[in-house]
Order: sequence, then structure tokens, then C-alpha cells
Amino acid sequence: MAKAKRICILLLRFLAFAATLSAVIVMATSHQNASFFAVSFEVKYTNSPSFKYFVIANAIVTVYGFLVLFLPSESPLWRLVVALDLVFTMLLTSSISAALAIAYVGKKGNTYAGWLPICGQVPKYCDQVTGALAVGFVGVITYMLLLLYSIHTVLDPLLLKKT
Amino acid sequence: MAKAKRICILLLRFLAFAATLSAVIVMATSHQNASFFAVSFEVKYTNSPSFKYFVIANAIVTVYGFLVLFLPSESPLWRLVVALDLVFTMLLTSSISAALAIAYVGKKGNTYAGWLPICGQVPKYCDQVTGALAVGFVGVITYMLLLLYSIHTVLDPLLLKKT
Repeated sequence: MAKAKRICILLLRFLAFAATLSAVIVMATSHQNASFFAVSFEVKYTNSPSFKYFVIANAIVTVYGFLVLFLPSESPLWRLVVALDLVFTMLLTSSISAALAIAYVGKKGNTYAGWLPICGQVPKYCDQVTGALAVGFVGVITYMLLLLYSIHTVLDPLLLKKT
Repeated sequence: MAKAKRICILLLRFLAFAATLSAVIVMATSHQNASFFAVSFEVKYTNSPSFKYFVIANAIVTVYGFLVLFLPSESPLWRLVVALDLVFTMLLTSSISAALAIAYVGKKGNTYAGWLPICGQVPKYCDQVTGALAVGFVGVITYMLLLLYSIHTVLDPLLLKKT
């Protein structure tokens, strides 16, 4: 039973690692050449600070997720992992929120501020950003599940002690 | 010692409550009439979905913070508060990131996407949004401190048990 649980957690951690890695790759490779009145330019993720933040945050969490995969199950560092999971889930949540806010403006524009949607000009770029955000979302959800599980196992002994 | 700690936590919770409440009030009252080529219009927080999200998230956390202030110290619900703190800190982090991303575009614009900064036209509105974000930041930081303290107290008995 304990072994099945451990394998389940390991699979979740691998899924989280794969999701954040894919988010980095999909976002970092998103680019499209567009022309506007005979002026050709390239649209890349580096054009927006929010997307840069998204890539950096996901890259950091990918490295962390990779390292945790190889942590032996008897290591005393696992207690630290709960706190680190918390910090990195916050980082992911923050980066995906910022990227989503900008992507929303890119998709729908904002008539009050006079910001026009840009997805009509660069549909391929837009689709790729949407894909990166979707994969990033899978990563955040997986880390939240892991965090809830950690909190559950940490709180459980206390609950048992009290009754 | 335990009493001083409890008062300290209560003060932190009160600060968090005051910060999120101020963030809601300052953001919700931010508006300015601007005219553009003889067309007069009003700039409000409801013009941007991210700012609306910021107000709603902060309002929810304000209500939660208010209720927690009156929770008796012997209540068994305190164990639930750790999990709720986590959820609401995530919500705050997410909302402030999204609002910050949009505020940044409003301040600096984005030349690649052709989005012009709007702070030149509506400086008063911009200052008020900046104020709301600053107060919201205080709220997030306070909730993070509370969360770290909760995790510390939850993890501590486990550490003592192991040694």
C-alpha cells in the first residue's frame, strides 16, 4: 500500500516535471514572422516581460522537479521538500497568472486602453502560446495536488495524536 | 511566551485584513475622466478583467481574514485554517500577478504589440492603481509570513518526534 502510494507520487512528480519542461520548450520556441505594411518583424516570447517570466519560472521549477525525482525516499531532505513545493507552486501560479493576463489582452484586446488584439496577425504564435499556457496549467495543478498530499500527510499524524 | 506569540500572530492577521481591505477600496474607487479628441470617457478598474479579478480576490480574502480574526484560539477549526491560508495566499498571488502584468503594460506599453502606455492620459488613475497594487503586495507578504509560521509550527512537532 505504501509502495503503491510512493509510485503514485513519483508518477505525479514525473508528470509535473514533464509539464513544466514542455511549457518551457513550447513557449521558448514560439515565434512567427509577420509583416505589417511591408515591414517584416518577428514575434517572439521575449517581446513580453510576462512571457519571459513564465519561461524563467517554469525553467526553475523544471530543474527543481528533476532534482526531486532522484531524491532517495529515506532522505531527511523530504521535510524540506514540502516547503520548497509551496514556494515553487506559488512561483508557478504567479507566472501563469501574469502570462494569462497578457495572453488575454493579446487575444481579445482592450478597447478602453486602445490595445488591439494581435492574434489575427500572428495566429501560429498565438496557438503556440495557448498551448504553452495549457501545459503550464497542467504543471500548476499537479504541483497543487502534490502540495495537498504533503499537507495531508503532515497534518495527519497531528490529527491522530489529538484524538 | 505563547501569549506574546499569539498576539503577534493576531496583529499580523489584522495587518493582512487591513491590507486586503485597503487594496479593495483603493482599486474599486480608482477612476478618472479623460478626454480624447473631444470624446470624454471614464477610466475605471472594471475596464480590465485583471483588475476586476484583483478586486474580487482581495474582497474574498478580506471576508476570510475578518472571520478568522474572531475564531476562538481553542477552536478545532484552526487546523483547517492552515489549508485555507494556503488556498487564499495562492488566490492573492495569482490576482496580484495578473494585475501587475496589466499595470506594467499600462505604464510602459508594449512596442512589439503596438500597445501604447496609457498613464500619460490618466495619471491620477495610474497612481491609484499603483497604490492598490502596493497595498495588495503588503497583504500577500503578510499572508506568506503567516503561512510560513503555520508550516513551521506544523512541521516542528514532527522534527522533535524524529530526533
